[in-house]
Amino acid sequence: MGLRYSDYYTVPFYECDVNQDMRLSALLSLALQVSGKQSQALGMSDEIIYEQYGLIWVVTEYTIEINRLPRYTNKIKIETEAISYNKLFCYRDFVIYDEDSQEKLLTIHASFILMDFKTRKVHPVEDAIVHVYQSEKRQKIEKSPKIPEITNGENLEFWVRYHDLDINQHVNNGKYLEWLYDSLGLDFLLEYIPKYIQLKYSKEIHYGHFITSTYEKDGNKTYHRISSDLGQHASAQIEWRKRENKHVL
Amino acid sequence: MGLRYSDYYTVPFYECDVNQDMRLSALLSLALQVSGKQSQALGMSDEIIYEQYGLIWVVTEYTIEINRLPRYTNKIKIETEAISYNKLFCYRDFVIYDEDSQEKLLTIHASFILMDFKTRKVHPVEDAIVHVYQSEKRQKIEKSPKIPEITNGENLEFWVRYHDLDINQHVNNGKYLEWLYDSLGLDFLLEYIPKYIQLKYSKEIHYGHFITSTYEKDGNKTYHRISSDLGQHASAQIEWRKRENKHVL
Repeated sequence: MGLRYSDYYTVPFYECDVNQDMRLSALLSLALQVSGKQSQALGMSDEIIYEQYGLIWVVTEYTIEINRLPRYTNKIKIETEAISYNKLFCYRDFVIYDEDSQEKLLTIHASFILMDFKTRKVHPVEDAIVHVYQSEKRQKIEKSPKIPEITNGENLEFWVRYHDLDINQHVNNGKYLEWLYDSLGLDFLLEYIPKYIQLKYSKEIHYGHFITSTYEKDGNKTYHRISSDLGQHASAQIEWRKRENKHVL
Repeated sequence: MGLRYSDYYTVPFYECDVNQDMRLSALLSLALQVSGKQSQALGMSDEIIYEQYGLIWVVTEYTIEINRLPRYTNKIKIETEAISYNKLFCYRDFVIYDEDSQEKLLTIHASFILMDFKTRKVHPVEDAIVHVYQSEKRQKIEKSPKIPEITNGENLEFWVRYHDLDINQHVNNGKYLEWLYDSLGLDFLLEYIPKYIQLKYSKEIHYGHFITSTYEKDGNKTYHRISSDLGQHASAQIEWRKRENKHVL
Protein backbone atom coordinates (compact mmCIF):
# COMPACT_ATOMS: atom_id res chain seq x y z
CA MET A 1 0.00 0.00 0.00
CA GLY A 2 1.23 3.51 -0.76
CA LEU A 3 0.92 6.96 0.74
CA ARG A 4 -2.55 8.41 0.77
CA TYR A 5 -3.52 11.94 -0.20
CA SER A 6 -6.88 13.63 -0.07
CA ASP A 7 -8.58 16.84 -1.04
CA TYR A 8 -12.05 18.38 -0.79
CA TYR A 9 -14.19 19.79 -3.57
CA THR A 10 -17.59 21.43 -3.96
CA VAL A 11 -19.45 20.43 -7.13
CA PRO A 12 -20.16 23.54 -9.30
CA PHE A 13 -23.21 23.86 -11.59
CA TYR A 14 -21.12 23.74 -14.74
CA GLU A 15 -19.84 20.23 -14.01
CA CYS A 16 -23.35 18.79 -13.65
CA ASP A 17 -25.60 17.13 -16.20
CA VAL A 18 -29.35 17.49 -16.78
CA ASN A 19 -29.94 15.10 -13.85
CA GLN A 20 -28.00 17.47 -11.54
CA ASP A 21 -25.39 14.71 -11.12
CA MET A 22 -21.72 15.54 -11.47
CA ARG A 23 -20.47 14.41 -14.89
CA LEU A 24 -18.21 11.41 -14.64
CA SER A 25 -15.87 12.99 -17.19
CA ALA A 26 -15.44 15.97 -14.85
CA LEU A 27 -14.90 13.62 -11.91
CA LEU A 28 -12.13 11.75 -13.77
CA SER A 29 -10.41 15.07 -14.52
CA LEU A 30 -10.75 16.15 -10.91
CA ALA A 31 -9.30 12.83 -9.72
CA LEU A 32 -6.24 13.32 -11.94
CA GLN A 33 -5.86 16.84 -10.61
CA VAL A 34 -5.75 15.44 -7.05
CA SER A 35 -3.15 12.79 -7.90
CA GLY A 36 -1.19 15.55 -9.63
CA LYS A 37 -1.27 17.52 -6.38
CA GLN A 38 0.03 14.49 -4.47
CA SER A 39 2.88 14.11 -6.96
CA GLN A 40 3.72 17.78 -6.59
CA ALA A 41 3.64 17.55 -2.78
CA LEU A 42 6.07 14.59 -2.99
CA GLY A 43 8.45 16.51 -5.27
CA MET A 44 7.61 14.45 -8.36
CA SER A 45 5.30 16.74 -10.34
CA ASP A 46 4.35 16.12 -13.97
CA GLU A 47 6.61 19.04 -14.91
CA ILE A 48 9.63 17.44 -13.22
CA ILE A 49 9.02 14.07 -14.87
CA TYR A 50 8.73 15.78 -18.24
CA GLU A 51 11.81 17.95 -17.76
CA GLN A 52 14.08 15.32 -16.20
CA TYR A 53 12.95 12.21 -18.08
CA GLY A 54 10.98 13.43 -21.10
CA LEU A 55 8.07 11.26 -19.86
CA ILE A 56 4.37 11.84 -19.27
CA TRP A 57 1.76 9.83 -17.35
CA VAL A 58 -0.94 8.28 -19.53
CA VAL A 59 -4.05 6.47 -18.26
CA THR A 60 -4.61 3.15 -20.06
CA GLU A 61 -7.68 1.88 -18.20
CA TYR A 62 -10.34 2.87 -15.68
CA THR A 63 -12.59 0.59 -13.64
CA ILE A 64 -15.29 2.56 -11.85
CA GLU A 65 -17.79 1.30 -9.28
CA ILE A 66 -20.59 3.71 -8.49
CA ASN A 67 -22.91 3.71 -5.49
CA ARG A 68 -24.17 7.18 -6.26
CA LEU A 69 -22.85 10.21 -8.14
CA PRO A 70 -22.01 13.47 -6.36
CA ARG A 71 -24.70 16.07 -6.99
CA TYR A 72 -24.78 19.83 -7.56
CA THR A 73 -23.47 21.75 -4.47
CA ASN A 74 -22.33 18.50 -2.73
CA LYS A 75 -19.05 18.78 -0.89
CA ILE A 76 -16.96 15.68 -1.54
CA LYS A 77 -13.67 14.20 -0.40
CA ILE A 78 -11.35 12.65 -2.98
CA GLU A 79 -8.82 10.20 -1.53
CA THR A 80 -6.11 8.68 -3.67
CA GLU A 81 -3.42 6.06 -3.19
CA ALA A 82 -0.79 4.67 -5.56
CA ILE A 83 -1.39 0.99 -4.80
CA SER A 84 1.29 -0.93 -6.69
CA TYR A 85 3.37 -1.09 -9.85
CA ASN A 86 5.20 -3.54 -12.09
CA LYS A 87 7.56 -3.28 -15.04
CA LEU A 88 5.04 -1.47 -17.22
CA PHE A 89 2.03 -0.33 -15.22
CA CYS A 90 1.26 1.72 -12.12
CA TYR A 91 -2.08 1.22 -10.36
CA ARG A 92 -3.83 3.93 -8.41
CA ASP A 93 -7.16 4.05 -6.59
CA PHE A 94 -9.41 7.02 -6.01
CA VAL A 95 -12.25 6.85 -3.53
CA ILE A 96 -14.88 9.59 -3.49
CA TYR A 97 -16.61 10.11 -0.15
CA ASP A 98 -19.19 12.55 1.10
CA GLU A 99 -17.87 15.45 3.17
CA ASP A 100 -17.77 13.49 6.45
CA SER A 101 -16.23 10.34 4.95
CA GLN A 102 -19.36 8.49 6.05
CA GLU A 103 -20.62 7.47 2.63
CA LYS A 104 -18.48 5.96 -0.11
CA LEU A 105 -19.91 7.36 -3.35
CA LEU A 106 -17.63 5.69 -5.86
CA THR A 107 -14.23 4.11 -6.44
CA ILE A 108 -12.02 4.54 -9.46
CA HIS A 109 -9.20 2.09 -10.16
CA ALA A 110 -6.79 3.49 -12.76
CA SER A 111 -3.87 1.96 -14.68
CA PHE A 112 -1.11 4.29 -15.83
CA ILE A 113 1.92 3.96 -18.04
CA LEU A 114 4.84 6.33 -18.53
CA MET A 115 5.05 7.44 -22.16
CA ASP A 116 8.03 8.98 -23.90
CA PHE A 117 6.66 12.36 -24.95
CA LYS A 118 8.63 12.52 -28.20
CA THR A 119 8.43 8.95 -29.50
CA ARG A 120 4.90 8.38 -28.03
CA LYS A 121 6.12 4.90 -26.98
CA VAL A 122 5.63 3.16 -23.62
CA HIS A 123 8.60 3.57 -21.26
CA PRO A 124 9.35 1.03 -18.48
CA VAL A 125 8.37 2.25 -15.00
CA GLU A 126 11.31 4.05 -13.35
CA ASP A 127 11.85 3.17 -9.68
CA ALA A 128 13.38 6.63 -9.24
CA ILE A 129 10.02 8.17 -10.17
CA VAL A 130 7.59 5.92 -8.31
CA HIS A 131 9.52 5.37 -5.07
CA VAL A 132 8.09 8.62 -3.65
CA TYR A 133 4.60 7.05 -3.42
CA GLN A 134 5.85 4.10 -1.31
CA SER A 135 3.69 1.74 -3.34
CA GLU A 136 4.43 -1.96 -3.65
CA LYS A 137 6.43 -3.42 -6.55
CA ARG A 138 4.83 -6.62 -7.89
CA GLN A 139 5.85 -9.00 -10.66
CA LYS A 140 2.36 -9.62 -11.90
CA ILE A 141 0.56 -7.47 -14.42
CA GLU A 142 -3.16 -7.06 -13.61
CA LYS A 143 -5.56 -8.84 -15.95
CA SER A 144 -8.74 -6.96 -16.65
CA PRO A 145 -12.00 -8.46 -17.94
CA LYS A 146 -12.29 -8.81 -21.70
CA ILE A 147 -14.72 -6.35 -23.26
CA PRO A 148 -17.05 -8.18 -25.69
CA GLU A 149 -16.77 -7.37 -29.40
CA ILE A 150 -19.68 -5.40 -30.84
CA THR A 151 -21.46 -7.34 -33.57
CA ASN A 152 -24.53 -5.22 -34.25
CA GLY A 153 -23.93 -1.66 -33.05
CA GLU A 154 -25.50 1.76 -33.43
CA ASN A 155 -23.22 4.63 -34.46
CA LEU A 156 -22.78 8.28 -33.54
CA GLU A 157 -20.40 10.05 -35.94
CA PHE A 158 -18.65 13.40 -35.68
CA TRP A 159 -15.40 15.30 -36.27
CA VAL A 160 -12.87 15.98 -33.50
CA ARG A 161 -13.11 19.72 -32.82
CA TYR A 162 -10.79 22.28 -31.23
CA HIS A 163 -12.46 22.10 -27.82
CA ASP A 164 -12.06 18.31 -27.67
CA LEU A 165 -8.29 18.84 -27.32
CA ASP A 166 -6.60 19.32 -23.98
CA ILE A 167 -3.38 20.84 -22.77
CA ASN A 168 -1.52 17.70 -23.92
CA GLN A 169 -2.59 18.34 -27.51
CA HIS A 170 -4.71 15.24 -27.90
CA VAL A 171 -8.27 14.34 -26.95
CA ASN A 172 -8.62 14.21 -23.18
CA ASN A 173 -9.43 10.86 -21.48
CA GLY A 174 -12.63 12.23 -20.01
CA LYS A 175 -13.88 13.20 -23.46
CA TYR A 176 -14.02 9.53 -24.54
CA LEU A 177 -16.47 8.87 -21.73
CA GLU A 178 -18.63 11.78 -22.94
CA TRP A 179 -18.62 10.28 -26.43
CA LEU A 180 -19.75 6.88 -25.10
CA TYR A 181 -22.58 8.54 -23.23
CA ASP A 182 -23.54 10.81 -26.13
CA SER A 183 -24.10 7.77 -28.36
CA LEU A 184 -26.77 6.48 -25.95
CA GLY A 185 -28.98 9.57 -26.22
CA LEU A 186 -30.95 11.72 -23.78
CA ASP A 187 -33.93 9.43 -23.11
CA PHE A 188 -31.73 6.54 -21.99
CA LEU A 189 -29.55 8.79 -19.80
CA LEU A 190 -32.57 10.29 -18.04
CA GLU A 191 -33.68 6.80 -17.07
CA TYR A 192 -30.46 4.93 -16.27
CA ILE A 193 -27.36 5.59 -14.20
CA PRO A 194 -24.13 3.60 -14.37
CA LYS A 195 -23.11 1.24 -11.57
CA TYR A 196 -19.97 -0.20 -13.16
CA ILE A 197 -17.74 1.06 -15.96
CA GLN A 198 -14.66 -0.47 -17.52
CA LEU A 199 -12.96 1.83 -20.04
CA LYS A 200 -9.81 0.84 -21.94
CA TYR A 201 -7.71 3.25 -23.99
CA SER A 202 -5.70 1.83 -26.86
CA LYS A 203 -4.65 4.73 -29.09
CA GLU A 204 -4.50 8.54 -28.86
CA ILE A 205 -6.89 10.72 -30.87
CA HIS A 206 -5.75 13.94 -32.49
CA TYR A 207 -7.39 16.94 -34.11
CA GLY A 208 -9.50 16.72 -37.24
CA HIS A 209 -10.24 12.99 -37.28
CA PHE A 210 -13.67 11.59 -38.01
CA ILE A 211 -14.83 9.56 -35.01
CA THR A 212 -17.40 6.81 -34.72
CA SER A 213 -18.80 6.08 -31.26
CA THR A 214 -20.50 2.67 -31.49
CA TYR A 215 -22.64 0.97 -28.87
CA GLU A 216 -24.63 -2.22 -28.44
CA LYS A 217 -27.13 -2.98 -25.68
CA ASP A 218 -27.36 -6.34 -23.96
CA GLY A 219 -29.86 -6.36 -21.07
CA ASN A 220 -28.65 -3.88 -18.44
CA LYS A 221 -25.23 -3.63 -20.11
CA THR A 222 -23.88 -1.56 -22.97
CA TYR A 223 -20.68 -2.23 -24.93
CA HIS A 224 -18.80 0.58 -26.61
CA ARG A 225 -16.12 1.24 -29.21
CA ILE A 226 -14.49 4.53 -30.22
CA SER A 227 -12.87 4.26 -33.64
CA SER A 228 -11.58 6.32 -36.59
CA ASP A 229 -9.85 5.68 -39.91
CA LEU A 230 -6.79 4.80 -37.79
CA GLY A 231 -8.61 1.89 -36.11
CA GLN A 232 -9.89 1.39 -32.56
CA HIS A 233 -9.03 4.03 -29.94
CA ALA A 234 -10.99 2.79 -26.93
CA SER A 235 -13.51 0.20 -25.81
CA ALA A 236 -15.77 0.02 -22.80
CA GLN A 237 -18.51 -1.85 -21.03
CA ILE A 238 -21.02 -0.23 -18.71
CA GLU A 239 -23.55 -1.83 -16.39
CA TRP A 240 -26.61 0.32 -15.72
CA ARG A 241 -29.38 0.50 -13.17
CA LYS A 242 -32.71 2.29 -13.32
CA ARG A 243 -32.70 5.71 -11.72
CA GLU A 244 -34.94 5.67 -8.66
CA ASN A 245 -36.10 9.27 -8.82
CA LYS A 246 -36.27 10.30 -12.41
CA HIS A 247 -35.36 13.94 -12.80
CA VAL A 248 -38.28 15.66 -14.51
CA LEU A 249 -37.43 17.93 -17.43
CA MET B 1 -22.16 51.02 -7.85
CA GLY B 2 -23.09 47.84 -6.03
CA LEU B 3 -21.54 45.56 -3.45
CA ARG B 4 -18.39 43.79 -4.54
CA TYR B 5 -17.58 40.15 -4.00
CA SER B 6 -14.41 38.24 -4.83
CA ASP B 7 -13.02 34.75 -4.84
CA TYR B 8 -9.74 33.03 -5.72
CA TYR B 9 -9.17 30.14 -8.09
CA THR B 10 -6.28 28.03 -9.34
CA VAL B 11 -6.51 27.05 -13.01
CA PRO B 12 -6.59 23.23 -13.39
CA PHE B 13 -5.17 21.37 -16.42
CA TYR B 14 -8.60 20.26 -17.59
CA GLU B 15 -9.81 23.82 -18.13
CA CYS B 16 -6.89 24.71 -20.40
CA ASP B 17 -6.57 24.55 -24.18
CA VAL B 18 -3.67 23.40 -26.36
CA ASN B 19 -2.01 26.78 -25.79
CA GLN B 20 -2.08 26.18 -22.01
CA ASP B 21 -4.46 29.15 -21.70
CA MET B 22 -7.60 28.81 -19.61
CA ARG B 23 -10.61 28.29 -21.89
CA LEU B 24 -12.83 31.35 -22.03
CA SER B 25 -15.88 29.08 -21.82
CA ALA B 26 -14.58 27.73 -18.50
CA LEU B 27 -13.85 31.27 -17.30
CA LEU B 28 -17.42 32.38 -18.09
CA SER B 29 -18.77 29.42 -16.08
CA LEU B 30 -16.44 30.20 -13.20
CA ALA B 31 -17.53 33.85 -13.24
CA LEU B 32 -21.18 32.81 -12.97
CA GLN B 33 -20.29 30.48 -10.10
CA VAL B 34 -18.73 33.44 -8.25
CA SER B 35 -21.75 35.70 -8.78
CA GLY B 36 -23.90 32.77 -7.62
CA LYS B 37 -21.85 32.66 -4.43
CA GLN B 38 -22.38 36.38 -3.90
CA SER B 39 -26.13 35.94 -4.34
CA GLN B 40 -26.10 33.10 -1.83
CA ALA B 41 -24.09 35.14 0.68
CA LEU B 42 -26.65 37.94 0.36
CA GLY B 43 -29.57 35.55 0.93
CA MET B 44 -30.80 35.69 -2.67
CA SER B 45 -29.53 32.41 -4.14
CA ASP B 46 -30.74 31.03 -7.48
CA GLU B 47 -32.70 28.40 -5.53
CA ILE B 48 -34.59 31.06 -3.55
CA ILE B 49 -35.44 33.05 -6.68
CA TYR B 50 -36.70 29.90 -8.34
CA GLU B 51 -38.71 28.72 -5.35
CA GLN B 52 -40.20 32.09 -4.35
CA TYR B 53 -40.69 33.67 -7.77
CA GLY B 54 -40.43 30.86 -10.34
CA LEU B 55 -37.68 32.89 -12.03
CA ILE B 56 -34.17 32.13 -13.26
CA TRP B 57 -31.28 34.39 -14.27
CA VAL B 58 -30.36 34.27 -17.95
CA VAL B 59 -27.36 35.96 -19.58
CA THR B 60 -28.30 37.85 -22.74
CA GLU B 61 -24.94 39.38 -23.66
CA TYR B 62 -21.24 39.36 -22.80
CA THR B 63 -18.64 41.98 -23.66
CA ILE B 64 -15.13 40.75 -22.86
CA GLU B 65 -11.89 42.72 -23.00
CA ILE B 66 -8.76 40.62 -22.72
CA ASN B 67 -5.26 41.74 -21.82
CA ARG B 68 -4.08 38.17 -21.32
CA LEU B 69 -5.71 34.85 -20.48
CA PRO B 70 -5.00 33.05 -17.20
CA ARG B 71 -2.69 30.08 -17.77
CA TYR B 72 -2.36 26.57 -16.37
CA THR B 73 -1.55 26.64 -12.60
CA ASN B 74 -2.09 30.43 -12.37
CA LYS B 75 -3.86 31.59 -9.24
CA ILE B 76 -6.41 34.26 -10.13
CA LYS B 77 -8.79 36.58 -8.34
CA ILE B 78 -12.33 37.01 -9.68
CA GLU B 79 -14.05 40.19 -8.53
CA THR B 80 -17.68 40.87 -9.36
CA GLU B 81 -20.06 43.74 -8.91
CA ALA B 82 -23.73 44.19 -9.86
CA ILE B 83 -23.36 47.63 -11.43
CA SER B 84 -26.89 48.77 -12.30
CA TYR B 85 -30.32 47.68 -13.49
CA ASN B 86 -33.38 48.95 -15.32
CA LYS B 87 -36.89 47.66 -16.02
CA LEU B 88 -35.63 44.66 -17.98
CA PHE B 89 -31.88 44.20 -17.59
CA CYS B 90 -29.31 43.84 -14.83
CA TYR B 91 -25.67 44.60 -15.57
CA ARG B 92 -22.77 42.97 -13.81
CA ASP B 93 -19.00 43.26 -14.22
CA PHE B 94 -16.38 40.65 -13.53
CA VAL B 95 -12.72 41.58 -13.36
CA ILE B 96 -10.08 38.85 -13.38
CA TYR B 97 -6.81 39.77 -11.69
CA ASP B 98 -3.62 37.89 -10.97
CA GLU B 99 -3.22 36.62 -7.41
CA ASP B 100 -1.89 39.90 -6.01
CA SER B 101 -4.43 42.11 -7.81
CA GLN B 102 -1.50 43.78 -9.57
CA GLU B 103 -2.36 42.80 -13.12
CA LYS B 104 -5.83 43.08 -14.65
CA LEU B 105 -6.11 40.08 -16.99
CA LEU B 106 -9.58 40.63 -18.37
CA THR B 107 -12.97 42.21 -17.76
CA ILE B 108 -16.35 40.71 -18.52
CA HIS B 109 -19.44 42.91 -18.75
CA ALA B 110 -22.62 40.79 -18.61
CA SER B 111 -26.30 41.61 -19.17
CA PHE B 112 -28.87 39.47 -17.41
CA ILE B 113 -32.63 39.12 -17.53
CA LEU B 114 -34.98 37.30 -15.20
CA MET B 115 -36.89 34.60 -17.08
CA ASP B 116 -40.09 32.87 -16.00
CA PHE B 117 -38.99 29.24 -15.79
CA LYS B 118 -42.31 27.82 -16.96
CA THR B 119 -43.34 30.24 -19.71
CA ARG B 120 -39.68 30.93 -20.79
CA LYS B 121 -40.70 34.61 -21.13
CA VAL B 122 -38.77 37.65 -19.88
CA HIS B 123 -39.97 38.90 -16.49
CA PRO B 124 -39.52 42.56 -15.40
CA VAL B 125 -36.72 43.04 -12.87
CA GLU B 126 -38.05 42.75 -9.30
CA ASP B 127 -36.74 45.38 -6.87
CA ALA B 128 -37.25 42.85 -4.09
CA ILE B 129 -34.69 40.57 -5.73
CA VAL B 130 -32.02 43.04 -6.80
CA HIS B 131 -32.02 45.38 -3.80
CA VAL B 132 -29.58 43.08 -1.95
CA TYR B 133 -26.78 44.00 -4.39
CA GLN B 134 -27.17 47.74 -3.71
CA SER B 135 -26.77 48.46 -7.41
CA GLU B 136 -28.10 51.59 -9.05
CA LYS B 137 -31.52 51.75 -10.74
CA ARG B 138 -31.35 53.59 -14.07
CA GLN B 139 -34.01 54.46 -16.64
CA LYS B 140 -31.81 53.87 -19.63
CA ILE B 141 -31.28 50.51 -21.29
CA GLU B 142 -27.68 50.00 -22.46
CA LYS B 143 -27.15 50.03 -26.21
CA SER B 144 -24.56 47.58 -27.45
CA PRO B 145 -22.71 47.74 -30.78
CA LYS B 146 -24.48 46.18 -33.74
CA ILE B 147 -22.90 42.94 -34.89
CA PRO B 148 -22.49 42.98 -38.70
CA GLU B 149 -24.53 40.49 -40.76
CA ILE B 150 -22.55 37.66 -42.33
CA THR B 151 -22.79 37.74 -46.11
CA ASN B 152 -20.24 35.13 -47.17
CA GLY B 153 -19.58 32.74 -44.30
CA GLU B 154 -17.96 29.36 -43.69
CA ASN B 155 -19.99 26.75 -41.81
CA LEU B 156 -19.33 24.12 -39.15
CA GLU B 157 -22.31 21.78 -38.72
CA PHE B 158 -23.13 19.29 -35.99
CA TRP B 159 -25.89 17.85 -33.79
CA VAL B 160 -26.47 19.00 -30.18
CA ARG B 161 -25.36 16.07 -28.01
CA TYR B 162 -26.08 15.00 -24.44
CA HIS B 163 -22.92 16.58 -23.01
CA ASP B 164 -23.76 19.95 -24.55
CA LEU B 165 -26.66 20.25 -22.09
CA ASP B 166 -26.27 21.73 -18.64
CA ILE B 167 -28.11 21.48 -15.36
CA ASN B 168 -30.75 23.89 -16.73
CA GLN B 169 -31.63 21.43 -19.50
CA HIS B 170 -30.50 23.59 -22.37
CA VAL B 171 -27.15 24.31 -24.00
CA ASN B 172 -24.92 26.21 -21.62
CA ASN B 173 -23.86 29.79 -22.49
CA GLY B 174 -20.18 28.86 -22.44
CA LYS B 175 -20.79 26.15 -25.04
CA TYR B 176 -21.78 28.75 -27.66
CA LEU B 177 -18.36 30.32 -27.30
CA GLU B 178 -16.75 26.90 -27.86
CA TRP B 179 -18.80 26.49 -31.03
CA LEU B 180 -17.66 29.89 -32.34
CA TYR B 181 -14.06 28.96 -31.71
CA ASP B 182 -14.43 25.45 -33.14
CA SER B 183 -15.58 26.89 -36.46
CA LEU B 184 -12.27 28.78 -36.81
CA GLY B 185 -10.10 25.65 -36.63
CA LEU B 186 -6.85 24.70 -34.90
CA ASP B 187 -4.33 26.54 -37.12
CA PHE B 188 -6.03 29.90 -36.60
CA LEU B 189 -6.38 29.37 -32.83
CA LEU B 190 -2.71 28.48 -32.44
CA GLU B 191 -1.77 31.79 -34.02
CA TYR B 192 -4.35 34.26 -32.71
CA ILE B 193 -5.78 35.18 -29.32
CA PRO B 194 -8.87 37.30 -28.73
CA LYS B 195 -8.61 40.85 -27.39
CA TYR B 196 -12.30 41.78 -27.57
CA ILE B 197 -15.45 39.66 -27.74
CA GLN B 198 -19.08 40.68 -27.99
CA LEU B 199 -21.48 37.73 -27.72
CA LYS B 200 -25.27 38.14 -27.91
CA TYR B 201 -27.73 35.37 -27.07
CA SER B 202 -31.15 35.49 -28.71
CA LYS B 203 -32.76 32.06 -28.31
CA GLU B 204 -32.19 28.91 -26.21
CA ILE B 205 -30.91 25.71 -27.80
CA HIS B 206 -32.23 22.30 -26.75
CA TYR B 207 -31.23 18.69 -27.29
CA GLY B 208 -31.12 17.04 -30.69
CA HIS B 209 -31.10 20.12 -32.92
CA PHE B 210 -28.80 20.46 -35.91
CA ILE B 211 -26.57 23.49 -35.40
CA THR B 212 -24.67 25.62 -37.88
CA SER B 213 -21.79 27.73 -36.55
CA THR B 214 -21.00 30.27 -39.27
CA TYR B 215 -18.08 32.70 -39.38
CA GLU B 216 -16.68 35.35 -41.67
CA LYS B 217 -13.25 36.99 -41.43
CA ASP B 218 -12.65 40.68 -41.99
CA GLY B 219 -9.05 41.72 -41.27
CA ASN B 220 -8.32 41.06 -37.59
CA LYS B 221 -12.02 40.56 -36.85
CA THR B 222 -14.35 37.59 -37.13
CA TYR B 223 -18.14 37.67 -37.17
CA HIS B 224 -20.19 34.71 -35.99
CA ARG B 225 -23.69 33.28 -36.08
CA ILE B 226 -25.10 30.21 -34.32
CA SER B 227 -28.29 29.01 -36.01
CA SER B 228 -30.60 26.01 -36.38
CA ASP B 229 -33.88 25.18 -38.11
CA LEU B 230 -35.46 27.43 -35.45
CA GLY B 231 -33.50 30.47 -36.65
CA GLN B 232 -30.66 32.46 -35.10
CA HIS B 233 -29.61 31.60 -31.53
CA ALA B 234 -26.58 33.84 -31.06
CA SER B 235 -24.26 36.23 -32.84
CA ALA B 236 -20.83 37.53 -32.02
CA GLN B 237 -17.89 39.58 -33.10
CA ILE B 238 -14.32 38.94 -32.01
CA GLU B 239 -11.23 41.08 -32.49
CA TRP B 240 -7.98 39.09 -32.57
CA ARG B 241 -4.30 39.76 -32.15
CA LYS B 242 -1.32 37.64 -33.12
CA ARG B 243 0.03 35.49 -30.31
CA GLU B 244 3.49 36.69 -29.36
CA ASN B 245 4.91 33.35 -28.29
CA LYS B 246 3.32 30.69 -30.41
CA HIS B 247 2.89 27.49 -28.45
CA VAL B 248 4.73 24.75 -30.34
CA LEU B 249 2.82 21.49 -30.85
